[in-house]
Amino acid sequence: MLKEAIYHRPKQNWAYGYDNETVHVRIRTKRGDVERVDVIHGDKCMPWSAMETEAMRIMGSDELFDYWEAAVEPLYRRLCYGFILTAGDQQLWYTEKGFSAAPPAVHLGLFEYPCLHSVDILKPPAWVKDAIFYQLFTERFANGDPSISPDNVLPWGGKPEYDNFFGGDLQGVIDHLDHLTELGINAIYFNPLFAAPANHKYDTGDYMRVDPHFGTNETLRTLVDACHARGIRVMLDAVFNHCGVTFAPFVDVMEKGEASEYSDWFHIRKWPLAVEDGIPTYETFAFEATMPKFNTENPQVKAYLLSAAKYWIEEIGIDGWRLDVANEVDHQFWREFRAVVKRANPEAYILGEVWHDSLMWLLGDQFDGVMNYPLTNATLDFFVFGHMDAVSFADTVSGQLAGYPKQASEACFNLLGSHDTVRLLTLCGNDKRRMKLAVLFQFTFAGAPCIYYGDEIGLNGEFDPDNRKCMEWDVSRQDRELFAYHQSVIALRKKHSALRTGAFRILLAEENGRRIAYERSDGQERIIVMMNPSEEARTVPVMLPAGEWKDGFSGELVSVSGGSYSDELTPYEYRVLVSEI
Amino acid sequence: MLKEAIYHRPKQNWAYGYDNETVHVRIRTKRGDVERVDVIHGDKCMPWSAMETEAMRIMGSDELFDYWEAAVEPLYRRLCYGFILTAGDQQLWYTEKGFSAAPPAVHLGLFEYPCLHSVDILKPPAWVKDAIFYQLFTERFANGDPSISPDNVLPWGGKPEYDNFFGGDLQGVIDHLDHLTELGINAIYFNPLFAAPANHKYDTGDYMRVDPHFGTNETLRTLVDACHARGIRVMLDAVFNHCGVTFAPFVDVMEKGEASEYSDWFHIRKWPLAVEDGIPTYETFAFEATMPKFNTENPQVKAYLLSAAKYWIEEIGIDGWRLDVANEVDHQFWREFRAVVKRANPEAYILGEVWHDSLMWLLGDQFDGVMNYPLTNATLDFFVFGHMDAVSFADTVSGQLAGYPKQASEACFNLLGSHDTVRLLTLCGNDKRRMKLAVLFQFTFAGAPCIYYGDEIGLNGEFDPDNRKCMEWDVSRQDRELFAYHQSVIALRKKHSALRTGAFRILLAEENGRRIAYERSDGQERIIVMMNPSEEARTVPVMLPAGEWKDGFSGELVSVSGGSYSDELTPYEYRVLVSEI
Repeated sequence: MLKEAIYHRPKQNWAYGYDNETVHVRIRTKRGDVERVDVIHGDKCMPWSAMETEAMRIMGSDELFDYWEAAVEPLYRRLCYGFILTAGDQQLWYTEKGFSAAPPAVHLGLFEYPCLHSVDILKPPAWVKDAIFYQLFTERFANGDPSISPDNVLPWGGKPEYDNFFGGDLQGVIDHLDHLTELGINAIYFNPLFAAPANHKYDTGDYMRVDPHFGTNETLRTLVDACHARGIRVMLDAVFNHCGVTFAPFVDVMEKGEASEYSDWFHIRKWPLAVEDGIPTYETFAFEATMPKFNTENPQVKAYLLSAAKYWIEEIGIDGWRLDVANEVDHQFWREFRAVVKRANPEAYILGEVWHDSLMWLLGDQFDGVMNYPLTNATLDFFVFGHMDAVSFADTVSGQLAGYPKQASEACFNLLGSHDTVRLLTLCGNDKRRMKLAVLFQFTFAGAPCIYYGDEIGLNGEFDPDNRKCMEWDVSRQDRELFAYHQSVIALRKKHSALRTGAFRILLAEENGRRIAYERSDGQERIIVMMNPSEEARTVPVMLPAGEWKDGFSGELVSVSGGSYSDELTPYEYRVLVSEI
Repeated sequence: MLKEAIYHRPKQNWAYGYDNETVHVRIRTKRGDVERVDVIHGDKCMPWSAMETEAMRIMGSDELFDYWEAAVEPLYRRLCYGFILTAGDQQLWYTEKGFSAAPPAVHLGLFEYPCLHSVDILKPPAWVKDAIFYQLFTERFANGDPSISPDNVLPWGGKPEYDNFFGGDLQGVIDHLDHLTELGINAIYFNPLFAAPANHKYDTGDYMRVDPHFGTNETLRTLVDACHARGIRVMLDAVFNHCGVTFAPFVDVMEKGEASEYSDWFHIRKWPLAVEDGIPTYETFAFEATMPKFNTENPQVKAYLLSAAKYWIEEIGIDGWRLDVANEVDHQFWREFRAVVKRANPEAYILGEVWHDSLMWLLGDQFDGVMNYPLTNATLDFFVFGHMDAVSFADTVSGQLAGYPKQASEACFNLLGSHDTVRLLTLCGNDKRRMKLAVLFQFTFAGAPCIYYGDEIGLNGEFDPDNRKCMEWDVSRQDRELFAYHQSVIALRKKHSALRTGAFRILLAEENGRRIAYERSDGQERIIVMMNPSEEARTVPVMLPAGEWKDGFSGELVSVSGGSYSDELTPYEYRVLVSEI
């Protein structure tokens, strides 16, 4: 056994509370190197003879490693544990003391999860794992109240530019809720709605007020109520890393300089405020002079932003916050933010924008989930760009699941495109077959999927500003076939809880090839997804137990005799099979 | 290069803020496998051409791994980075995307330390790394006020039992501060002082009052003032995991059962309170019925305990809290505790009792340091029990340093014995030669050393209650030679900041043998410690640069020509050499 490959460290993603009774324990070994791992566990205050043994299962594998997992339930909340690794006739103990042939003499040599505390467990709101989000860029969704459109508003459907306006507003959203209900989504993520100069509203001027070109706070309340009446939750965008240059405290600093009472609200490196060689003398988002970075260590700044966080939940009834540039704001701020938000609404979703490994925000004290860009990248690389073979794709997504607590993966926000990226259909070269497979994967994997407005009816678009086109409301110009496809995958996901919370297992991943098949299974039902993301017809074989299998979409019975099963799939064809266990 | 051995994950001990300008970056490789590691780093918002390269150095090695480290200073607080690993003519990039032959195309593929925030950096009080603690078990230190002794007090110096009393009190400590000043310590860690039935006071009855047999709150204030006047800081023991059965809320629960307004202050599994088959129906410390565990998720409990935490700092002036059974209390409680304590005194030391790997408490939001039992165990195993050879010892302590942020290691509390263990001298079979080497290591390693009362004058003792003997005040019965030895190592540590904050480097570790030599170096001075912890005279060779070398204890000049240097050390002899750089 390759000792150097073996990794475990208590807490984090390796031993974490899953619920008030259960600790998930994981360990990593070199791929294919170890035949069996058992976790020996017990209460350190009970005799060694009371220790129990639980066989671990491989929850997934990536290029280099197998990841083993077991769920254990400490009798008295205290848990100490060690691992026995077996390969052939070799057996190794692995404990906090390292490797040994025999168990440690005393409990003290074991790893510890000292006490399972409810308050320390990451508990995303239950609704999130069942959510299907729709990302809505309000300025380009629908103009429902032309009376509040900007003076320079352009006719709907014109060419989007960095700085032009088409008058999309909240009334437009209210007017088109039927579209969302018909599609089947049950949550909306709104790009920023607060008063701000830019059409994207990421340069906030006032955190307490809906942008007047979008409506009023009252309009938003009406919209939220209308959504709730339809079973749709509403998440807003919290741009708390930075503000815009119309934000009153920053205006004051621009006017009064060092004498401003708000000078410590920002990070001023040097007075006066200026841009020198492209770099502002004050900290900003990137080096963008119009987006001055908040000093979130300043108690006044915290009080202001946290009061906003609270206001929109308590007064307007929103169901969650998406946190812009979340990883560049201090952890301490987010801890306080979580306390305020969960006090206002324990069921509010806290979603961080972090493009990288996000473990340190997903330990229970900060976010419920993150925008799952690593998954986005893998999905695009495999289904859309063909940059990786099926094995690499399987390895990557399996490794990602092993990297977070299960409940974090289930509460992640899985997107295939946004206002920050080229649109999915465009990435696919307008090849809907590829797009459909990417979306099918998105809707059959752990984490809440999100559809970027318009993707469902075939909007395409290059990078900003082209990815922010006006929504197409002329049904004859909508891709209704694509819309129906989205309806069907949404319905599939809603119907089967195994797709939301079941274990993920790769059944087939073709080396140097494209065929892939996987299972989601939650003990109640088993769902098989088979795909042929290639230009040639291919047989996709999997091993299936006998049982009553049905086609996930048509509901038709599928004959499975048990054992080897295969489908002949045409290029880019897929098959979803469902069976009760 | 063995890819499976390579490990890095942003934050934690792998990439952490060290101060407001500096991020320490570390990576692990298979021992001896990689010749060179460079970290390529920059600001993700600047062009790739602005990336800088920093060669990493091996900060230490354990049995399986080399640990590489570099300190980098992000220009604008944002840091993205990747590693280039070189072995022979093989070169590998390692980034968040995994291994590759070439750098990633964009910054997005790199690891990220997104923004260096002062508030997120673990910043233990500066005094802690310079502290030399003395652990004082008050009931057995000195009886200064017989008028307040318990009724059943026994004559000083009798045989300690689990439940007997000798009348030690705070006045006794005040009377003997000269002893501590003469010894040279500059901080006291007091076992619990609050009103409680047991002689050890870990079964607290009232968190707001000094035990009447120890004195009054006023006596403690006098003692604290007297200590401060001598430059001695005072740390108390916070027993917040559980209370005792005389604690009024628990008394109320015992009396009124489920109807008690305090019933949610504890974890009652089943009414009525009882002990069934040795297991209380309510949660306790271990299964000890007299120590009911607090429900620290209850806001009233939090408010009570946090008011106590604040009171003793603000009203009595204490300098820190040692947290009993700290790892069995929830993280969220400790975060709030830290906020309260640091608000009361930003220089207060927060020390957790955790016997295991403690990383998750040392990330800036909870503790400043922990009782460093893993180091205790290694030190005893090598110097006292001879259970490991010099290589294993060097591996173990080097691996421990790599496992925590540097500032956490420097603020750990390094003990070789306590009220919970057999006394050091007894563990040594009363062989002072072994004890001295263990103590010399303790005083020349990172972390604040602590002397358990009486160890310095030769008290011995088996497990509790024998390790809690009355302090010996008859100078003729004190081991004054041992006392002088402790004075000398204390003076050595105080004189040389390199012993407190310098880098640690193994110079010699004998395989299957005992000889060991190491360096502490901080850029100002270099200190060499050479030891022969064996029964035979041995030559201890090290490589030393030329320079003015002096004996660390005598100050005598030592002739070093540069290059190979060796000392012939008698059994258990040691040598400390000092040179300015």
